[in-house]
Amino acid sequence: MTGWLAVAGLGPGDAALVTPEVEAALAQATDIVGYAPYVARVPPRPGLTLHPSDNRVELDRAALALDLAARGARVVIVSSGDPGVFAMASALFETLKARPGHDPDIRILPGITAMLAAAARLGAPLGHDFCAINLSDNLKPWDLVERRLRLAAQADFAMALYNPRSRARPQQFSRALEILRDECGEKRLICFARAVTTPEESLSTLPLSEARPEMADMRTVVILGNSATCRVGRWVYTPRSALP
Amino acid sequence: MTGWLAVAGLGPGDAALVTPEVEAALAQATDIVGYAPYVARVPPRPGLTLHPSDNRVELDRAALALDLAARGARVVIVSSGDPGVFAMASALFETLKARPGHDPDIRILPGITAMLAAAARLGAPLGHDFCAINLSDNLKPWDLVERRLRLAAQADFAMALYNPRSRARPQQFSRALEILRDECGEKRLICFARAVTTPEESLSTLPLSEARPEMADMRTVVILGNSATCRVGRWVYTPRSALP
Repeated sequence: MTGWLAVAGLGPGDAALVTPEVEAALAQATDIVGYAPYVARVPPRPGLTLHPSDNRVELDRAALALDLAARGARVVIVSSGDPGVFAMASALFETLKARPGHDPDIRILPGITAMLAAAARLGAPLGHDFCAINLSDNLKPWDLVERRLRLAAQADFAMALYNPRSRARPQQFSRALEILRDECGEKRLICFARAVTTPEESLSTLPLSEARPEMADMRTVVILGNSATCRVGRWVYTPRSALP
Repeated sequence: MTGWLAVAGLGPGDAALVTPEVEAALAQATDIVGYAPYVARVPPRPGLTLHPSDNRVELDRAALALDLAARGARVVIVSSGDPGVFAMASALFETLKARPGHDPDIRILPGITAMLAAAARLGAPLGHDFCAINLSDNLKPWDLVERRLRLAAQADFAMALYNPRSRARPQQFSRALEILRDECGEKRLICFARAVTTPEESLSTLPLSEARPEMADMRTVVILGNSATCRVGRWVYTPRSALP
């Protein structure tokens, strides 16, 4: 039997946002590997082995998936959102790089990443040039996060901020808000989108002056508008044009 | 009859990347509005009226869709990729802003945007902080594009460049490559992903020193790695870590 390995994005939560490509891979799989809450989104069935794991063991998880596929298994590593955006695809290639000569059958299956699902629920806040920044400093120095926030503000990008806040680092998002107020002014619109497309979804949009750190947690994606972002009715959008 | 309006992302081309949510909206629609090549992706059926239009008439198209919905139609505006990324969602809200008091039933239905589909085919080049820049100067001054490219390079973002080149402005992408070589060096990896997930798909990755303007056209999304982006086998990826 020839094994293969797919890294699949399950989207933000709603089953109606899982692509048919991902559904087909899940239906053919013998093994599902991933962070436990994402593995729990795959319905069990006979012949399917689930391998849930903890957070922050991405390289172990990738190694397990490569080992299973090498033994002939049909393996899907599941990520929420898109596997290429702050998720498992890079971890897989990092692991592969440490195994010279190993050339498994790999496919990356895209999904609806959190910022695009959140943007759709809010309106169109990413309708002009934008950036995506992971605020966690697990894998990069916090100084670099601050530097990127300032440069992104100076470029007048709209911004999507992933992993804004966790219990382990409650002060950093507070500092990020300070930097953004300093660079963008108190009136700039900021959106908090939590658990988008799930029953726990909540959305709010407010000026930076009213933003508080506790409005975000690890299930929140934060979207900051650019200098032209505005509201119409209950919607928030960034105009396509930046002509003077 | 109560009309509604959905703005739906059809993804990059492959039907297996259209979400069930979008398929359901298309199945319920009475009217499909959009740029002709995207409308052509919706199969005709009795009871469904297709309203294809030319490029660069986004506001007319949004006005038509609002008018139809106000008369009770179930309207889907179709975009390729994701409707919130350089597509029709912002144009709709701009049009709505000019109609005070009008509060139609609107839903934005996300899709797989070109950069994420391209990244998946290439490996994981957007696996760390990144930005998305539209290189067209139809709606912004070219100076602003140049400024954003430089600031994004200084932030060491990976970059997805949409609409890199058209017949009307052949020199600008050449200029963009000059700026990127200047800021990022000759060895930085650049990927050209054309018509991703369609039968015409082509992919190439090379150092900036070998990039030529004619490698891109309007069906290409260009992805530039950050300073750590590298290859493993036929794949290209950006490591998750930026620790020194």
